[in-house]
Amino acid sequence: MTLRIAEIFGPTIQGEGALIGEPTVFIRAGGCDYRCSWCDSLHAVDSAYRETWRPMQPDAIWEEVRRLSGGQPLTVSISGGNPAIQDFAPVIGRGKAEGYRFACETQGSIARDWFGDLDWLVLSPKPPSSGEQVDWEAFAKCVAAGQGAGATVMKIVIFDEADFNWAREAAARFPDLPLYLQPGNPEVDPQTPVDLETLSERMLWLVDRVTEAGWFSARVLPQLHVFLWGNKRGV
Amino acid sequence: MTLRIAEIFGPTIQGEGALIGEPTVFIRAGGCDYRCSWCDSLHAVDSAYRETWRPMQPDAIWEEVRRLSGGQPLTVSISGGNPAIQDFAPVIGRGKAEGYRFACETQGSIARDWFGDLDWLVLSPKPPSSGEQVDWEAFAKCVAAGQGAGATVMKIVIFDEADFNWAREAAARFPDLPLYLQPGNPEVDPQTPVDLETLSERMLWLVDRVTEAGWFSARVLPQLHVFLWGNKRGV
Repeated sequence: MTLRIAEIFGPTIQGEGALIGEPTVFIRAGGCDYRCSWCDSLHAVDSAYRETWRPMQPDAIWEEVRRLSGGQPLTVSISGGNPAIQDFAPVIGRGKAEGYRFACETQGSIARDWFGDLDWLVLSPKPPSSGEQVDWEAFAKCVAAGQGAGATVMKIVIFDEADFNWAREAAARFPDLPLYLQPGNPEVDPQTPVDLETLSERMLWLVDRVTEAGWFSARVLPQLHVFLWGNKRGV
Repeated sequence: MTLRIAEIFGPTIQGEGALIGEPTVFIRAGGCDYRCSWCDSLHAVDSAYRETWRPMQPDAIWEEVRRLSGGQPLTVSISGGNPAIQDFAPVIGRGKAEGYRFACETQGSIARDWFGDLDWLVLSPKPPSSGEQVDWEAFAKCVAAGQGAGATVMKIVIFDEADFNWAREAAARFPDLPLYLQPGNPEVDPQTPVDLETLSERMLWLVDRVTEAGWFSARVLPQLHVFLWGNKRGV
């Protein structure tokens, strides 16, 4: 069995969401069933980059994670693209046998049995600004598939007022999922330096909106890696 | 019973540690048994500010938290100074009866029975750069007092290589406590604008040190509020 892998890198810290700050090796899968207008990982999504995706056997993927982490168990984050397109069960099985922990980030459009093997399942339904539309039935299947996971959480990126209102409804559908909100990054070109002022402003706007609305069940976090490294890849 | 309170503010988001991003109202107690060289809350520590600390009854403190949060339960963080100097049991009791959650941040020099009533006990032993010396026996008593709490975690601020090595030993003493590392903020004067470049560099240094050392049980987080608001108070 072969998996298409856009990149494997780390250890670095997780920059966003529930595991922010956690030393992590990232496996970024190539390929996505979505094409969000503001996608910050086009190199793992757009089929124009397809030739840069390495076809790798689960064993080879695992060897690379082990090499990067010096054989010392840590958290491995499987992201993309949408990693749920492919079968990561063999990679997770290999890693868990050696004491590694696994997180997976996916939009929640495709359910997989191996979600239940994860320590963290992060489901990120995409708001209106993405140009995509969430299939809530498929999303509910992902939540169900993650039942055996250590934890399932919801993460929503918010660019504007419409996204904010949508996020409130999305969260209300799954009140039991811990919720993380993240301001959108309007500048995703790896060549363009990030404007920290704009990033801060968007974060402050979201903090204000959430606290004004009394939405105290949501945690609000920026993409810390963008503050620290800009849009640079592989960190 | 009267408590000395330096400030009560929020809701805003928690800027550091295990609850980073969590909407929170802060109760900052006045008074401290430490005097860290790089203290970022001198207005709640230095007795020169003593006259600015309001003597408040637990009921009055609670009314203020309720007013700020619009009566809607959220997380309340009790910090300082060292809040363990005073008796916050009545405040916590009032709040928990109304569904609020409580976190307390303390260096771990004074144990209190009410630690066990908390949802989160955050113990921050101070590294050598602080100029203070940790009494590990007293610290262990704090850990024991927090046994009934939802969770007890350790947070260590790191300024330099000596602090880093000290933190490794400190963490090894309490391997069961989830661990959060935080780069020190060298510029704590509220009048001086924060240098984001320096903050980023210190964070990147700490991420590199932690990942190079294979210290994967530690989470590394900056003081997000300093990135967003500088050293401004009341946010």
